Amino acid sequence: LCPAGLLPLCSRVWGSGARERAGLPPAQRRAFSNNKMLVELDEGSGVATVKFKSPPVNSLSLDFLTELSIGLEKLENNRGCRAVIFTSAVPKIFSAGLDVTEMCGKSTEHYAEFWRVVQNIWLRLYGSNMVTVAAINATGKTGLTWALCLWQGSSPAGGCLLALSCDYRIMADNPKFVIGLNESQLGIVAPFWFKDTFVNVVGHRIAERSLQLGSLHSAPEALQLGIVDELVPEEKLQDKAAAVVAQWLALPDHARQITKSMMRKSVLDRLLTHQEEDVQNFVGFISKESIQKSLRMYMEMLKKRKG
Amino acid sequence: LCPAGLLPLCSRVWGSGARERAGLPPAQRRAFSNNKMLVELDEGSGVATVKFKSPPVNSLSLDFLTELSIGLEKLENNRGCRAVIFTSAVPKIFSAGLDVTEMCGKSTEHYAEFWRVVQNIWLRLYGSNMVTVAAINATGKTGLTWALCLWQGSSPAGGCLLALSCDYRIMADNPKFVIGLNESQLGIVAPFWFKDTFVNVVGHRIAERSLQLGSLHSAPEALQLGIVDELVPEEKLQDKAAAVVAQWLALPDHARQITKSMMRKSVLDRLLTHQEEDVQNFVGFISKESIQKSLRMYMEMLKKRKG
Amino acid sequence: LCPAGLLPLCSRVWGSGARERAGLPPAQRRAFSNNKMLVELDEGSGVATVKFKSPPVNSLSLDFLTELSIGLEKLENNRGCRAVIFTSAVPKIFSAGLDVTEMCGKSTEHYAEFWRVVQNIWLRLYGSNMVTVAAINATGKTGLTWALCLWQGSSPAGGCLLALSCDYRIMADNPKFVIGLNESQLGIVAPFWFKDTFVNVVGHRIAERSLQLGSLHSAPEALQLGIVDELVPEEKLQDKAAAVVAQWLALPDHARQITKSMMRKSVLDRLLTHQEEDVQNFVGFISKESIQKSLRMYMEMLKKRKG
Repeated sequence: LCPAGLLPLCSRVWGSGARERAGLPPAQRRAFSNNKMLVELDEGSGVATVKFKSPPVNSLSLDFLTELSIGLEKLENNRGCRAVIFTSAVPKIFSAGLDVTEMCGKSTEHYAEFWRVVQNIWLRLYGSNMVTVAAINATGKTGLTWALCLWQGSSPAGGCLLALSCDYRIMADNPKFVIGLNESQLGIVAPFWFKDTFVNVVGHRIAERSLQLGSLHSAPEALQLGIVDELVPEEKLQDKAAAVVAQWLALPDHARQITKSMMRKSVLDRLLTHQEEDVQNFVGFISKESIQKSLRMYMEMLKKRKG
Repeated sequence: LCPAGLLPLCSRVWGSGARERAGLPPAQRRAFSNNKMLVELDEGSGVATVKFKSPPVNSLSLDFLTELSIGLEKLENNRGCRAVIFTSAVPKIFSAGLDVTEMCGKSTEHYAEFWRVVQNIWLRLYGSNMVTVAAINATGKTGLTWALCLWQGSSPAGGCLLALSCDYRIMADNPKFVIGLNESQLGIVAPFWFKDTFVNVVGHRIAERSLQLGSLHSAPEALQLGIVDELVPEEKLQDKAAAVVAQWLALPDHARQITKSMMRKSVLDRLLTHQEEDVQNFVGFISKESIQKSLRMYMEMLKKRKG
Repeated sequence: LCPAGLLPLCSRVWGSGARERAGLPPAQRRAFSNNKMLVELDEGSGVATVKFKSPPVNSLSLDFLTELSIGLEKLENNRGCRAVIFTSAVPKIFSAGLDVTEMCGKSTEHYAEFWRVVQNIWLRLYGSNMVTVAAINATGKTGLTWALCLWQGSSPAGGCLLALSCDYRIMADNPKFVIGLNESQLGIVAPFWFKDTFVNVVGHRIAERSLQLGSLHSAPEALQLGIVDELVPEEKLQDKAAAVVAQWLALPDHARQITKSMMRKSVLDRLLTHQEEDVQNFVGFISKESIQKSLRMYMEMLKKRKG
């Protein structure tokens, strides 16, 4: 099912011939490449890898999110695909998060379209029948990652939400990298389903404090708070992700899927029953002149820091 | 109140004369013995001890659960009984959990009867006015406990649920013993009220991961995750359980009982309002040929591992 | 809005001239002093400090709570006030909690009036738009703090609730001081909204155990359980509180306030929709002869221990 607003894009992505371009035997490994990400499916194991490759910082623009949404739908509907690993092909950054430029100085129609895709990705990912693992492979010198985010004008929150919606989160063991839902720092507010997802992972108290402060947590702190499940040296990240997926796939799919659905259904249903209301809330809030001003100030500040 | 399906058994258990057989002064300590467990009530302290004695692995068969249900009812209605300690009289095992043979190759009527008793035990135990303590006294050489479970074809999940429904859990400090809700490994799904109970003890994230993987956790891991409250050397387990009960009984019963009810009522009510629906769900699920096949395969695998 | 029962007091507190008495420049720091607490507002930073000064133990009597309620209302409505720090001007004690004498041997009208003020304080504090920090500055020799509570016949629970309702809790690092919701020890029951507040801070399991036992936790234990966020040496408590407030105030108010409301609204709404019912429950429970007897016994016990 193509979500509203995505139909025009359905035909142009996921072009054929990708696996040939990747030089792999057709029956064993299929690769789809498009503008923003590389998708490889190992048909033997049923494990797909989605590599974000939208330099410089894998910013979650409308185009990026649209491709990701369609990619997730294709994998979900492919009976040969049982698991997905999300990682980055861009050195030193997983995702800088939602692209602030999509929320600033655009039309209300644009805001609505953007928000529907964000909702859609989360509904697919949080409710996925596949085993989903985030391999957060960012490292960098002090300030580098942050500077990259600043440069692009992104909020890391969206990248964090993608990771929080997976079944398991592995992060490169580098205290210089940060993860968190930092909406508050931009003067905006995480929607209730970001909050619900976060609470389900770290509990009410940690979520309340972290969301109010818009905290970005270092890798060791993220482990301690339960935002990620494990830290590993960056060079072992892919192996570790593969090992985790293998462990989860050793279970019978059907029982695992029903169990996952039982754990997540009430939170998914809350958005499903308030989806259009949530779009209108977002559009109304983001269109306010005070919020637009706040976002412009944030982006100005980033430019100055970068300079 | 005898639950439906249990009436025919009410008259044959809890026979008189048990305390005489135990050689104890009648006014101070009463012991009831039956096929599957030994119940001793110290009338001075108001503390009962329920010792599971159904070798080899205290498998939770229909007979075992029926006796436990009636035993709990008797203790609950006895104004002289204020607390219960659950432990095992079988060396090296607390309980291997629900007896898979009760769920495999039987009639739908049998499945329904079995499931009603499981529900009934949980409703009694999770909603008990008594202080309830699980003294999980299993230790063993590597693989021994597990081999015993395999031999009997049991799932440890039921034993874990009994422990999770108590007010306090003390476990023998042995890394070789395991505890957990491992339904997923059998291709079946923990019902929502197992899940609710688990979430109330360990929080949403740990429950989600552990239930999806059907994890069996070692004693140190169980302590770290909050599945048990304390580890003690096995030889000190009974003393520790008695000390914990004494601490809890120092509080006024009435305030403690209302507090406990306030904490647990919403989860208890959820099953009470969906009890028959839950029976039908269980019967429908377990009767599926695919699930029966999965359970037969599981038991075959156990036999082979044992052999 | 003056809550019912508080109107007669509205005119006599918050007298003018307080800042002159405090010898501070009028435009920068305003101090209001009354019988039970000192309120200072730094107009430069927008940070108010509420210092409890009701010796010997800052017992939460009807008078104390009424002044606190009105004080909170004034600060909340003062657009120049963005944050409040709660601390004590009484050496070695933050607050001994609810004054048991207000719940013992009085009329049902008195109980109802008392309980409405307790509700009102919590609704204001838990739902406050201001940043709220508890600086729990009690230290003392072994037993001193406890003896003070006993002497006054107070339950520490009320003081703990004030702290739990703040955004952040800093406690003087002294293992001899205790914090907790100890209603069970008095034979009474924490109302559901105390419980909800506690669960939101420490999670279901810790709350269940601590509330059933009416536990008073030492400072290190309170940190470990998450009841407080940080321990600091007592002489650094005020500096630390100021630093925490500065960190929280660095965020845009509007986004932080909406986020806070999103996290707390469901729990606040639960009391708002059952407020009068909760008053009647409290009055009915506390008026019972058995409960009155229990409270009298508790106070007798305290007097004997003190003697």
